[in-house]
Amino acid sequence: MPKLGVGELQAILSQGFPDADVPHVEEVTDDAVIVSYSVTDRHGRPGGTLAGPVMMSLADTSAWIAIMSQIGPVVLAVTTSLHIDFLRKPQLTDLMAKTRLLKLGRRLAVVDVELYSRGETELVAKAQVTYSIPPSPAT
Amino acid sequence: MPKLGVGELQAILSQGFPDADVPHVEEVTDDAVIVSYSVTDRHGRPGGTLAGPVMMSLADTSAWIAIMSQIGPVVLAVTTSLHIDFLRKPQLTDLMAKTRLLKLGRRLAVVDVELYSRGETELVAKAQVTYSIPPSPAT
Amino acid sequence: MPKLGVGELQAILSQGFPDADVPHVEEVTDDAVIVSYSVTDRHGRPGGTLAGPVMMSLADTSAWIAIMSQIGPVVLAVTTSLHIDFLRKPQLTDLMAKTRLLKLGRRLAVVDVELYSRGETELVAKAQVTYSIPPSPAT
Amino acid sequence: MPKLGVGELQAILSQGFPDADVPHVEEVTDDAVIVSYSVTDRHGRPGGTLAGPVMMSLADTSAWIAIMSQIGPVVLAVTTSLHIDFLRKPQLTDLMAKTRLLKLGRRLAVVDVELYSRGETELVAKAQVTYSIPPSPAT
Repeated sequence: MPKLGVGELQAILSQGFPDADVPHVEEVTDDAVIVSYSVTDRHGRPGGTLAGPVMMSLADTSAWIAIMSQIGPVVLAVTTSLHIDFLRKPQLTDLMAKTRLLKLGRRLAVVDVELYSRGETELVAKAQVTYSIPPSPAT
Repeated sequence: MPKLGVGELQAILSQGFPDADVPHVEEVTDDAVIVSYSVTDRHGRPGGTLAGPVMMSLADTSAWIAIMSQIGPVVLAVTTSLHIDFLRKPQLTDLMAKTRLLKLGRRLAVVDVELYSRGETELVAKAQVTYSIPPSPAT
Repeated sequence: MPKLGVGELQAILSQGFPDADVPHVEEVTDDAVIVSYSVTDRHGRPGGTLAGPVMMSLADTSAWIAIMSQIGPVVLAVTTSLHIDFLRKPQLTDLMAKTRLLKLGRRLAVVDVELYSRGETELVAKAQVTYSIPPSPAT
Repeated sequence: MPKLGVGELQAILSQGFPDADVPHVEEVTDDAVIVSYSVTDRHGRPGGTLAGPVMMSLADTSAWIAIMSQIGPVVLAVTTSLHIDFLRKPQLTDLMAKTRLLKLGRRLAVVDVELYSRGETELVAKAQVTYSIPPSPAT
């Protein structure tokens, strides 16, 4: 069972990044979180597509949210590596991320992230993200 | 010899992203480009460090600049994959990228990118970025 | 519908690597192939686990098989990049690979590969593999 | 200064993999190790080139050797991730690996590995490899 739900995770995001337009936590289950990001014209790139960094940023953030949903508010977890393959031109519409926890160890967590445009089934990008989890203060 | 120099590459960046604070092309040689990004407080993250997406974005953009420096303004080249290892906490100062073209084929280019804080020698992150190069219109 | 089935793919493997112990193609569907590799004592590593290179090799080969199952015998397709996260110690038993074609373009194919020990549900490793597809001779 | 030299590292390799043809440790410095692997006909692949798995295996092993050269015989260190970009067709001659330690932390080490054919300057592949270092028994 998740330790944190939609509201708690959204609050962590909003407190951590008060001035930014943060992603929206849409769904939290035992296995996955679904996160969306509202795309506007200013995220565009020459060629009329969504910028790669927007996708990398959402992959990174949604992996962090997926880990916190299972182990609680480890806000100081840090990304140690991120690999992403860009597959198709996304539409200039909401970008969605669906995560899958591949490993949740004491020191490292590995998260698989699928990125797609809202309403579409084909993936626009796929990432594997590793986070280092700080030792818990109680130990 | 590079086909485009500092001024031409900076102009492409500024035209492509008119409203954003774009990186600065500092140096262009046969083998490398050096690009910097001015970091301000708003790029911070919980824990007082620079956000990972800022580093990924600079790795992606500097790889694109490195390719264009050698083959001209292929503004429609697209990233096909990016791998990054985060190594150390960067300082909240200018982030620097130094590129190395590992391969410049007709269809794919692979660029190695070192990221470091201005004035430091240790790397804060290291990326390998692949771009797909569109067929040239003349062919 | 797959263009090549279990028998045809197995024949390509056996002809391509006549002296090696090749993987076994176990299943071919529209979406996936399942490939197994018989692990013996000599694949072990200090610590009594399966060597990483055996897993990387099976990830690479099964991605190639997945692509050929859909587009026919492109034996000259070459791997352009491979990313793998190692998740758990595999057992010294058959290693299994299940593929998923993330993208099948004219020039590049990207394949997601799950690796697990036969009979287990948890993944031991997860890879994303990119192949470059040679232009077809007819074009 | 390296903790282990050419002879000690070679001995670890030979003891760990008694029946395999192990790589040769050619040089150990403060910053790098150079490792070679004797390529024979049986490593070939359809198309007359060196098999990708041979390159991945050497990248993995040489990263392990580079870490041990600095911190001693941590034979139980395990690879947590490996990313490799294949750049050019290697020749069917000795494959060389040159490493660079990007990070040597208490828990994780990240190693950059350049692969090239003996006598050539252009890289055939480039990898970034992460190892997890087990807690030292004394602590």
